[in-house]
Amino acid sequence: MSETHAHRRDALRSRLRERDLDALLVTDLLNIRYLTGFTGSNAALVVHAADGPGGEDRTVFCTDGRYLTQAEEQVADLERVIDRASDLTIAHRLGEEATDYRRVGFESQHVTVDNRDVLDDAAGKSELVRAPGIVEQLRLIKDATEIEALRMACAAADRALADLIEHGGLRAGRTELEVARELEARMLDNGAAGPSFETIIAAGPHSAVPHHRPTDAVLAHGDFVKMDFGALVDGYHSDMTRTVVLGKAADWQREIYELVRASQAAGRAAVKIDTEVRDVDSAARQVIADAGYGEQFLHGLGHGVGLEIHEAPTLSQRGDGRIAERMAVTVEPGVYLAGRGGVRIEDTLVVRPGTPELLTLTTKELVEV
Amino acid sequence: MSETHAHRRDALRSRLRERDLDALLVTDLLNIRYLTGFTGSNAALVVHAADGPGGEDRTVFCTDGRYLTQAEEQVADLERVIDRASDLTIAHRLGEEATDYRRVGFESQHVTVDNRDVLDDAAGKSELVRAPGIVEQLRLIKDATEIEALRMACAAADRALADLIEHGGLRAGRTELEVARELEARMLDNGAAGPSFETIIAAGPHSAVPHHRPTDAVLAHGDFVKMDFGALVDGYHSDMTRTVVLGKAADWQREIYELVRASQAAGRAAVKIDTEVRDVDSAARQVIADAGYGEQFLHGLGHGVGLEIHEAPTLSQRGDGRIAERMAVTVEPGVYLAGRGGVRIEDTLVVRPGTPELLTLTTKELVEV
Repeated sequence: MSETHAHRRDALRSRLRERDLDALLVTDLLNIRYLTGFTGSNAALVVHAADGPGGEDRTVFCTDGRYLTQAEEQVADLERVIDRASDLTIAHRLGEEATDYRRVGFESQHVTVDNRDVLDDAAGKSELVRAPGIVEQLRLIKDATEIEALRMACAAADRALADLIEHGGLRAGRTELEVARELEARMLDNGAAGPSFETIIAAGPHSAVPHHRPTDAVLAHGDFVKMDFGALVDGYHSDMTRTVVLGKAADWQREIYELVRASQAAGRAAVKIDTEVRDVDSAARQVIADAGYGEQFLHGLGHGVGLEIHEAPTLSQRGDGRIAERMAVTVEPGVYLAGRGGVRIEDTLVVRPGTPELLTLTTKELVEV
Repeated sequence: MSETHAHRRDALRSRLRERDLDALLVTDLLNIRYLTGFTGSNAALVVHAADGPGGEDRTVFCTDGRYLTQAEEQVADLERVIDRASDLTIAHRLGEEATDYRRVGFESQHVTVDNRDVLDDAAGKSELVRAPGIVEQLRLIKDATEIEALRMACAAADRALADLIEHGGLRAGRTELEVARELEARMLDNGAAGPSFETIIAAGPHSAVPHHRPTDAVLAHGDFVKMDFGALVDGYHSDMTRTVVLGKAADWQREIYELVRASQAAGRAAVKIDTEVRDVDSAARQVIADAGYGEQFLHGLGHGVGLEIHEAPTLSQRGDGRIAERMAVTVEPGVYLAGRGGVRIEDTLVVRPGTPELLTLTTKELVEV
């Protein structure tokens, strides 16, 4: 793993040189995890644009005493400093080295107004300049290690749903909360460190609420049951939605199900390198609008996934930019008929030349449980 | 509940007038929850120092369309605006009203450097001035609604541990992870919405690691088992640690157990109104130091709990300020013998005149399971 992180820091160094920055002060914990592998709750990092005199990586990492042993294991290849005020310690060190460094970027999209002043003071003659989103830009394109973690996270969710159904866990008479808890437990049994977000189980009319939280409501024969859930593996988040029918589907259920399925297929087919993200959204949305349900598709088509459950890019009409190889995104259209029921179908995909790679493999045929 | 939140906003208004602020732009979600009861993931709020002409509360609340229904229920008593960019919407409205308001505080300890600029632009002629920690100062002293939620959260944890032991869940041969999962499930069964933080189960030598994460390590006869866990109820966090012995305690185990127990009792006894927080820490620390284990007590004595698992005050040598009535704090000394085992005993308390009110009621006698 340390080689992977070294590669990521190399890529960051190139970006720093392009922006004429001498170093980047990294204080966001997810960005630190991405660049070093460290998973603790307190850390700061400085990555220098230039290598050391012997070509070595001059990155300095700081965490507090609770993580002494963990840092030795996870950040074995970097210089480590132990101090509770990790960001100040790193900033102070930059100040002491100020003959070497003048322009040091900081993550102005994460650092608070109050903390910026404290860091400025500590950095002394090193000038802290705004440098938002540099690491996030790198994180947009997933490397092999990240895709493998996403694949495992998606597999844990796939297997959990299969186990749930196979063991009769999805049946009339149970509450949404009971099903949610069983599904989460089965993800743990299948290798997840936890759910990647609060599991949505929405039965009957509740399935028409896009982000319903599970309640004591009882699943009934004939209900749509919408399940939106994911697993967390090595810090990476999977995201999948399936909607099934308890018993035999009514005609109206089959109609909107097949409509959403066609829309989702159109959305997936549009996930191609260099396509504008809003055109991907349009491709799926058009199918639903053509059928007269445009007003019932209440949200954007999808979003990036990775170390966060929602990250760039945003696949919606408000989104900006283009699809690129090795982005990981969701495609999740839905149609919601208030008071009756709704359907959402969602996959997690990795962008590849040609057809995207599907990571969530559970069938999208209409399942009648 | 809306009356409780109205009281809290009244208290905030007094603080704003003391600081010569015309209003406070609140963007931190926990502070918004505290002031309104809203539990969604996107919101902003402006609280005005002065009442409206008819004595009415002029607070304006903004959230996005996902939370339309939820906001109608949870924030029924306030003017509501629906917009995705909730903070900008509120700031923009302040700008439009700029003949009325000049000095508007913002939460500079939460707002990022980049976002401050955007808010400044939106606020137009209203001047945004730093106003860190005003709501957090109010949150330091718990009202009756908060204490009741903490009491229920502590009770859920107490009952979960009793159930775990009664059903034989704590036994040699199980892994730390299995015990952690059962304890978390039993908290849910007892009314918790979830664990209040990642449950620590640390057996044998692992009990000597203050913040051990549960592993596949198997509990063995003669082990210390240290359990640090809590429940979440209505957004409030309980926090409790108990350390038991599997089978009969050895003499060294009994010795450090009784030492930590005496230290914890001394710490609780020192939690008195107007005492300096560092003197509370000293009272417990002295007991351990006198026994020659001062170097093995590796952390501060405790911390505030409430809408966050760690909040003000900090009971440690680095802490500042004094104990006040209706603060909710933990008292959690420990002694850790590296490679052998450790003991921590932790309660959640509410400060009262005289003796503090104990919310975690599980016995602190040495339990041999």
